[in-house]
Amino acid sequence: MSPNTPQNGQFASIKIIGSGLIGTSIGLALASRGVSVEMADIDPNAAKLANDLMASAPVEQPEIVLYAGPSSGLKSALESEFKVNKALKFIDIGSVKTKSLLEVSQSSIPTERFLATHPMAGREVGGAQSARADLFQSRNWIYMPAGLGGSPVDADLIAAGLWMIQALGASPVSMTAENHDRAVALVSHLPQVSASLLAAQLRGADSKLLDLAGAGLRDTTRIAASSAALWDEILSSNSAELLPLLISLQSDLATFIERLGVSASVSDLIEAGNQGRAKIPGKHGGAAREYALLPVVIEDKPGQLAALFDECASAEVNVEDLTIEHSPGQFTGLITLALSAKDAQILQAHLTKSGWSVHAPR
Amino acid sequence: MSPNTPQNGQFASIKIIGSGLIGTSIGLALASRGVSVEMADIDPNAAKLANDLMASAPVEQPEIVLYAGPSSGLKSALESEFKVNKALKFIDIGSVKTKSLLEVSQSSIPTERFLATHPMAGREVGGAQSARADLFQSRNWIYMPAGLGGSPVDADLIAAGLWMIQALGASPVSMTAENHDRAVALVSHLPQVSASLLAAQLRGADSKLLDLAGAGLRDTTRIAASSAALWDEILSSNSAELLPLLISLQSDLATFIERLGVSASVSDLIEAGNQGRAKIPGKHGGAAREYALLPVVIEDKPGQLAALFDECASAEVNVEDLTIEHSPGQFTGLITLALSAKDAQILQAHLTKSGWSVHAPR
Repeated sequence: MSPNTPQNGQFASIKIIGSGLIGTSIGLALASRGVSVEMADIDPNAAKLANDLMASAPVEQPEIVLYAGPSSGLKSALESEFKVNKALKFIDIGSVKTKSLLEVSQSSIPTERFLATHPMAGREVGGAQSARADLFQSRNWIYMPAGLGGSPVDADLIAAGLWMIQALGASPVSMTAENHDRAVALVSHLPQVSASLLAAQLRGADSKLLDLAGAGLRDTTRIAASSAALWDEILSSNSAELLPLLISLQSDLATFIERLGVSASVSDLIEAGNQGRAKIPGKHGGAAREYALLPVVIEDKPGQLAALFDECASAEVNVEDLTIEHSPGQFTGLITLALSAKDAQILQAHLTKSGWSVHAPR
Repeated sequence: MSPNTPQNGQFASIKIIGSGLIGTSIGLALASRGVSVEMADIDPNAAKLANDLMASAPVEQPEIVLYAGPSSGLKSALESEFKVNKALKFIDIGSVKTKSLLEVSQSSIPTERFLATHPMAGREVGGAQSARADLFQSRNWIYMPAGLGGSPVDADLIAAGLWMIQALGASPVSMTAENHDRAVALVSHLPQVSASLLAAQLRGADSKLLDLAGAGLRDTTRIAASSAALWDEILSSNSAELLPLLISLQSDLATFIERLGVSASVSDLIEAGNQGRAKIPGKHGGAAREYALLPVVIEDKPGQLAALFDECASAEVNVEDLTIEHSPGQFTGLITLALSAKDAQILQAHLTKSGWSVHAPR
């Protein structure tokens, strides 16, 4: 680390290669902590948007290069940075860690200069435009304190990684690459395959039938919108861990089909799902933000949203998020505002007084 | 209908059999519209809670009996009500409509006195305690204007059903029972099986691995928490429509496993999921519409959203949806507006001229 910031691993400058969702979210969060950030990408438009979002400028001699691009480009990207600056240290955030470590062990980068990490956060929408500085808030962020076969990683690089993880609001979790890859096969890669295969069944469907889709279908298929190129790479890299899980799923599906075909009960199979679901810790994905949801029924006509937000401004409340539900031909729509519990109460009282159709927060 | 409320199907009293989530939510909403509601259930505690929630009293001679219990109890519950009051009309809200209609056609109830309906709303948590009067707001609510084989349903019963659906904020959608059952197999029953089987894979897992679970696993398995008894009944009742879908899923899973086993690309299978996912209509419940997404970077301070919507109003564009991304401590927020392609262009030009930080629509 530079002599100005020797404590606790804090660093002053970073170059982030890969201006997608994760790279840009890291950049946004570090920039807000005063770190000089340069965003790069093989797509200049993506890099421009990312740099624009954090009003950043090129960094002459970054202390750290963080790689947030496709894993197939890891080795060459890091090697070309290292060629220009032999003092560099490297961090990556890829989804399959044995592969990252293997690539680096076969590169010109000294393995002690590479810290493998993986933030357990993401969205089904990619790109800098979807980035958010709080993406990692309260999430686990795995890191490997040693390389393949227990090879050492520089202590100050580990310290830098830990500082970054904590500065971004995440919880550092130390794991071996092997345990990490086993865990993500179960909690991330298997759900991805399941969602993609489920969503694929909708392709040929009559659009009229899909008009009946509700929250269940939307939630179970949300991550099916994820990038095919990205996931092809991830799933292939982790096939050794993923395949046994898929074969178990296949066996359960066969049992289900057999039972349904002979009108036998499938209750125990649904119950097995109840039990599995109950094993997932925490209701909200870590100690995620707890918002109150305030439903407001509005007339479905232009200007209503502006009027509603004028009310929010005059009540001096901070709207964190919102959803809009309405159907063509229906005269009303439902806006659900997400706010702090206190702001929800203030706004409910304010809107009620002004004659809005507002429901109790939940 | 009673002579007091002959217009538009409005009725003054109802007995709801089944004090679970759906029945109680309907009761709450009707009670708030001034209808006298009596809640009943084979579980007296559930009925008591439901009646308490809406401060209701027994109704001497209800005009309508709405059945919201398990489908296995439909026939006997309706017959015992009909025995006491031959003027009764019946509505149900079960998930598989050919079965409801078949049960009634084999009962002592005249088929023209039975209106089969299905509100497309629910939660993975059940029971009166989870009920909400706004559960149906802006949702589709299917109804069958004719019985099996096109047998007629009383016009005033249809009118009563339509009044109720609209009074609860939902959009009535007329369908045949056959089309309904085909649609829900795809948009509701298949996702349920997929989520249950996925969640079942977590049962034996090391809890430490599950600590890494993120939003993807939570969303894909949310509905796996649903009642096994309820879903056993629903899935069995609709096995004719569900089985072909499960067999197609099984075939795709086999292909996926085969590809992964020989390190072949699975990109096209993930893409098939992208395509299927894209067919799901927006939150609006209407036909799938293609919106342009316009990202606008705003200062994270009160009044900015109102100012932005004032601009939308003055540009005379119609905002269909929006998302807000920002976090405490971040100096900018990103609003992504969903509009028609034409409106997105108009608004981009308008906002650029007014000095907003607006990015290219995508």
